[in-house]
Amino acid sequence: MAISKNKLKYIRSLRQKKFRQKYNKFIAEGDKLSLEILQSERINIELLVGVEEWVEQYRPLLRKCEETIVVSERELKQMSALQTPNQVLVVADIPTNTIDEAIVQSDWSLYLETIQDPGNIGTILRIADWFGIQHVFCSPDTADIFNSKVIQSTMGAFLRTRIVRITFEDLQHRFPDVPSYGAVLRGKSIYKQKLPSNGILVMGNESKGIPAAMQAQLSGLITIPPHRASGMESLNVGVATGIICAALRNQVGK
Amino acid sequence: MAISKNKLKYIRSLRQKKFRQKYNKFIAEGDKLSLEILQSERINIELLVGVEEWVEQYRPLLRKCEETIVVSERELKQMSALQTPNQVLVVADIPTNTIDEAIVQSDWSLYLETIQDPGNIGTILRIADWFGIQHVFCSPDTADIFNSKVIQSTMGAFLRTRIVRITFEDLQHRFPDVPSYGAVLRGKSIYKQKLPSNGILVMGNESKGIPAAMQAQLSGLITIPPHRASGMESLNVGVATGIICAALRNQVGK
Repeated sequence: MAISKNKLKYIRSLRQKKFRQKYNKFIAEGDKLSLEILQSERINIELLVGVEEWVEQYRPLLRKCEETIVVSERELKQMSALQTPNQVLVVADIPTNTIDEAIVQSDWSLYLETIQDPGNIGTILRIADWFGIQHVFCSPDTADIFNSKVIQSTMGAFLRTRIVRITFEDLQHRFPDVPSYGAVLRGKSIYKQKLPSNGILVMGNESKGIPAAMQAQLSGLITIPPHRASGMESLNVGVATGIICAALRNQVGK
Repeated sequence: MAISKNKLKYIRSLRQKKFRQKYNKFIAEGDKLSLEILQSERINIELLVGVEEWVEQYRPLLRKCEETIVVSERELKQMSALQTPNQVLVVADIPTNTIDEAIVQSDWSLYLETIQDPGNIGTILRIADWFGIQHVFCSPDTADIFNSKVIQSTMGAFLRTRIVRITFEDLQHRFPDVPSYGAVLRGKSIYKQKLPSNGILVMGNESKGIPAAMQAQLSGLITIPPHRASGMESLNVGVATGIICAALRNQVGK
């Protein structure tokens, strides 16, 4: 066997948040995502594990990996969290994202308040990336960004976004002049107001939304107006984030 | 045991598309969704299976069920497709949705071209419902709407939407004067054109998009403009549907 039992155990342990935190590492899988990480200057790769064909094809790119191990498909399956592993897996350092104050002061950022579903977080990171929103702040109890479901569903968006875990109180304390808007069911229509060119858009928990105490601290409460015939109670939080970001980007102009 | 083995087997068989088609039935689970179905005039309920407490509480509503069976929580778990069954499950007739020609002529409709992920279909039905889009047409190879994952994720939106499986060719043949627009990566920005007040919005497959041959038959190709700094290749199809529907609804006015 080309990979030691200890290493296999180590890789599998990173599926759990406590071990990701202990080692400050995360896993990304598959051809496309691994190539993106290899080409990202921000991410240090500790270990790349791949089938021979893949490793041979990308040999020149692998210099930045501290270690490369060639394995069989059967071995890859043993360490993969995917149903169908795809040629390669990397173990990389969780990047330290810093806040770029000038950008937060002048542009829109997102604040995720207790978002729980990894799929929703992945979707939101893709939206941030699409609309060039550079900062995604997360409440301490928002699900882990480096959960493998999030990483696999972001399609590399996490590499281009500054994801910073911070309490909303600390964020407001640091940026007292940046207005904050919460997406709620009974706010002012996003299409019936002129929103500023900078701000923090707060998106709340999938079932509970934004807590009342937090709503009271925001500069404004905004809503995606439902159609008069609508029977729905809410949109999915990823969809709502997309609609509001699209409106912000195409109102403030470029 | 309060429920026969045959009935249990029948209920469990409905998780498979071939049996849903054979019996023309689907399953919906849980307190909230079951109540919505009970209150919908469009849906005939063949069988309601619930724990005693739930059945007693809603007894007056249960007259419309052909049969009601009280079961233990353990029995409910045996037939449920959910990890944590929630008090009640209904077996109902798959509704026959007809096309309201006047609405298709005068309003926007959706056409789903080979959408594969049940979660995406559920999200899109919620969007249609939110924005009052009454018709959701599906290509023959779009995933089954009555798949339990779709039903559970739509949160009742499927009760208020006319979902009709039809080839795009037949749809165009039936509505030759209704313009059709496809969401693609390199089309004209939805914010830089005046779209009509009626039309068919075509959303394509998660990875392949809209086939070239089909694109050639459309009235126009439209795009959600990415931010200049965007590194992404695409948005999730549910998010893209939400953004375009929001733009359509808030451009054409109400």
